[in-house]
Amino acid sequence: MNEEKLHSLEKLFERDGYVALSGIKIAEAGDDYATVSADIRADEHLNGVGVVQGGMLYTAADFAFAVLTNMLHPTTITQSATVTYIRAAKTDRITATAREIERAGHNCVVEVIVRDGGGNIVCTGSFNGFISVK
Amino acid sequence: MNEEKLHSLEKLFERDGYVALSGIKIAEAGDDYATVSADIRADEHLNGVGVVQGGMLYTAADFAFAVLTNMLHPTTITQSATVTYIRAAKTDRITATAREIERAGHNCVVEVIVRDGGGNIVCTGSFNGFISVK
Amino acid sequence: MNEEKLHSLEKLFERDGYVALSGIKIAEAGDDYATVSADIRADEHLNGVGVVQGGMLYTAADFAFAVLTNMLHPTTITQSATVTYIRAAKTDRITATAREIERAGHNCVVEVIVRDGGGNIVCTGSFNGFISVK
Amino acid sequence: MNEEKLHSLEKLFERDGYVALSGIKIAEAGDDYATVSADIRADEHLNGVGVVQGGMLYTAADFAFAVLTNMLHPTTITQSATVTYIRAAKTDRITATAREIERAGHNCVVEVIVRDGGGNIVCTGSFNGFISVK
Repeated sequence: MNEEKLHSLEKLFERDGYVALSGIKIAEAGDDYATVSADIRADEHLNGVGVVQGGMLYTAADFAFAVLTNMLHPTTITQSATVTYIRAAKTDRITATAREIERAGHNCVVEVIVRDGGGNIVCTGSFNGFISVK
Repeated sequence: MNEEKLHSLEKLFERDGYVALSGIKIAEAGDDYATVSADIRADEHLNGVGVVQGGMLYTAADFAFAVLTNMLHPTTITQSATVTYIRAAKTDRITATAREIERAGHNCVVEVIVRDGGGNIVCTGSFNGFISVK
Repeated sequence: MNEEKLHSLEKLFERDGYVALSGIKIAEAGDDYATVSADIRADEHLNGVGVVQGGMLYTAADFAFAVLTNMLHPTTITQSATVTYIRAAKTDRITATAREIERAGHNCVVEVIVRDGGGNIVCTGSFNGFISVK
Repeated sequence: MNEEKLHSLEKLFERDGYVALSGIKIAEAGDDYATVSADIRADEHLNGVGVVQGGMLYTAADFAFAVLTNMLHPTTITQSATVTYIRAAKTDRITATAREIERAGHNCVVEVIVRDGGGNIVCTGSFNGFISVK
């Protein structure tokens, strides 16, 4: 995306301490999707069996949801979310891409796909958002 | 719980880098529940509007699930999870307590309640686990 | 429960055509729970492999949620729900019991347990409700 | 789809009593999707406020999932499912279309969209399936 748009989105989320702690960054955003990514650090992102920890995958998915929905209709917060872990993520990089399935009134439903460095889906998410301004 | 039990559980999860990065620790465990907790650091755990970030709440809930289920029936991994955010968590400490609702064959369902420092429920979770050894 | 209370609840839901079609009835309700039940008819409630169909189990769970939440704080509608099927339900009767985990503002989270005639848990549900009147 | 394919799918599910009771039929199926539909009968499918009952929407979504997954990789059963109700369904017809997001080993994740007669999304679902034959 253009530098200006990326910069404004980064501004919007620069105060999210947990996303920063987790090393997740905004990678790309189009009119109907947003992608975030993170380089996986062995000492910070893996669980006891050497795969990317589930909380890290969730946090990336939730951040992709936040970037997309606050781009489409601020201010949107996560109301509920369901994630499914489909493969062990043995990788040095993950990306999470969010697309809105539907929005109606104060509510929206967003699908998020989390992939490993090889492009394999490792986690899927269905996020429900609450939009403050109808 | 007794020091020995706490120590063995800590051993089991000491290699979880993301839990360590997130500052989440095992607080307590009984025969049918496990509680984890974290002191909230303003620079690392809050989102842009000053409440505990959703990914942090999820990661605490998932860790409570992991501690409980691997205590009850190792090895158990998260297969899918649903979380609902019920209140903004403006607090300096969170706790997450997991209780197993049912286990059958390779599957288990665990309920997790995440509370703020005042004991108010801020997030609830329903976790589905896959147990390797039937 | 007393006849009067049961009657008023039945009145409230007598116009739910799908619940009637499905043969689900209000069985019991206390201050903090509601139970509905259905006698399983081989020709109407089973799937192709002879177990109670998942949609029937869901509908019983959703009705238990509806009875409880509209007793506690009308008017409440289902906003989202997650169900997990934990065992095949080979039985001639099912019951679904709903308990509220938490309510805050317009939102509530309710846990529902569906059991077979022998009392075994066959399905669990986590329901999120939207309450019209705060 | 061609008559032969439709007939074989109908054969596969003709013994599902609850789907028959609910009046849900297979409408269409392609290589990567399946659609089921139902004509809404005021006396059988509506709830107390005159909209299509949530259990009916769920049952249609679950049947679309079943038709698709058993076409792609029999035998698949619903392990868990999350549905979100996005609009009141005041309509005389609903359709539910299922598409598989990913399949890995014994597990698959399927997205289901339920629409009213006007094509508006009334319910979305994320279904997790367990596939018997890997």
